[in-house]
Amino acid sequence: MNDRKNAPIGVFDSGVGGLTVAREIMRNLPGERIVYFGDTARVPYGTKSKETVLRYSRQIVRFLKTQNVKTIVVACNTASALALETIQQETDIPMIGVVKPGAKVAAETTRNNKIGLIGTSATVKSDLYRTIIQEINPDIQVIGQACPLFVPLVEEGWWKDPVTVEVAKRYLDPLLEQGIDTLILGCTHYPLLRSLLRGIAGDQVTLVNPAYETARALGRLLREQDLEAEGKKEEEFPYRFYVSDEEAHFQRFANSILPYDVKMTKQINIEEY
Amino acid sequence: MNDRKNAPIGVFDSGVGGLTVAREIMRNLPGERIVYFGDTARVPYGTKSKETVLRYSRQIVRFLKTQNVKTIVVACNTASALALETIQQETDIPMIGVVKPGAKVAAETTRNNKIGLIGTSATVKSDLYRTIIQEINPDIQVIGQACPLFVPLVEEGWWKDPVTVEVAKRYLDPLLEQGIDTLILGCTHYPLLRSLLRGIAGDQVTLVNPAYETARALGRLLREQDLEAEGKKEEEFPYRFYVSDEEAHFQRFANSILPYDVKMTKQINIEEY
Repeated sequence: MNDRKNAPIGVFDSGVGGLTVAREIMRNLPGERIVYFGDTARVPYGTKSKETVLRYSRQIVRFLKTQNVKTIVVACNTASALALETIQQETDIPMIGVVKPGAKVAAETTRNNKIGLIGTSATVKSDLYRTIIQEINPDIQVIGQACPLFVPLVEEGWWKDPVTVEVAKRYLDPLLEQGIDTLILGCTHYPLLRSLLRGIAGDQVTLVNPAYETARALGRLLREQDLEAEGKKEEEFPYRFYVSDEEAHFQRFANSILPYDVKMTKQINIEEY
Repeated sequence: MNDRKNAPIGVFDSGVGGLTVAREIMRNLPGERIVYFGDTARVPYGTKSKETVLRYSRQIVRFLKTQNVKTIVVACNTASALALETIQQETDIPMIGVVKPGAKVAAETTRNNKIGLIGTSATVKSDLYRTIIQEINPDIQVIGQACPLFVPLVEEGWWKDPVTVEVAKRYLDPLLEQGIDTLILGCTHYPLLRSLLRGIAGDQVTLVNPAYETARALGRLLREQDLEAEGKKEEEFPYRFYVSDEEAHFQRFANSILPYDVKMTKQINIEEY
């Protein structure tokens, strides 16, 4: 028996947003264990420089290695865009991010070759979505829009609030005016605004959720590398959560996203890794 | 001659907000040198726990000591509320925060004993404003309101935007309904929303800006401790800026707040202190 098969999958994000990715992994790969790390002491990453996001990502990878993970999912668009390529070269654990799976599906989805991308300033500026999409089809135009207010609005709990609708219109209108037919939700918080964004974008625009595509890509990776779990015990709770700031705030948010009571959260000092 | 007199004043904040305090010190104490540190890699502090804010504040104090500062101004409401008391006991450099000067003036200002306090979640939850105000007059009622969207709205540059007006109404209405006659701008970003908040609160409510009161309290502290600068050379630029993330974003914002071209900004790795 291959011990690594039953090792957990490491999933990390700058904070709570990556839980939307963890949720998709739980739904799509119910036999897998997960160790989640949310860098809640240093959130957000989306306004930070490449160098800083890389330093933080390296510390997190070192922590996840102590948890004996078999693979690492970078469940943060900013870290996927700014750090994944480098940390992938530095470690022998298979890794995937959220950008590539989302970009691929968006490229396959568009019919008029006009894709909108919403995300943090850092993700939009990095141009990684555009690069990957244009490698698939150089005729596709990718129109980016940074939406720095969405994360605080989601964390304030205003998921369906008129203020959020107004802010979303402000951000989305320039994309819609240019006739996009596909919109990438390029930040892990944004699936929580999905129905609000759908209302503004209308039925003619397909929303692409990289969280979902990442869970599917992870399933393929595990099969290819012969790393699929051989089953976990029924009585065991297979998910562990670690954060860099206090547990309480994270648990409240986690319990609003996940269909579990997330009691098992532990705070660690990530700067020590 | 006392060398310490001409040493710089250390001023720190979680990011750019403390520049409103630095600005008041520059205006009110034009003979003083300043070393400013903005923790832009780990901003914001307002959603973080006491333990984390304390760890970060200790690192910053260690860094400012290497700059030979004669006094330290904690130009961040959250750090003043959560960390100042402890770090003050741990070091021999005189320190002041922004909470006490703002709280004192608010207590002297109110006529109907109803003070509103707006700030980050951490500042409002800490109850330090209330504690100081009620030590002065136990009859004063302090009504707190966390405004987590204000900092991102200010950083988005929407200082006079209809969305910000709508958000501000949502936050302020419960305070106004309770009949406050004094409102403490309990976060260093908020003075930038001053005219917008004045428009909503109306002329019957006095706005208290702790940044201004802190600069005045600092002047008194320097006089009492015989630490006033004996004058700086005309040709010298007396302000140095350090940040924990890249300089460019900080400089853009700094140049919109300060009447100087802030070219002299340097990035350091604060985790090493």
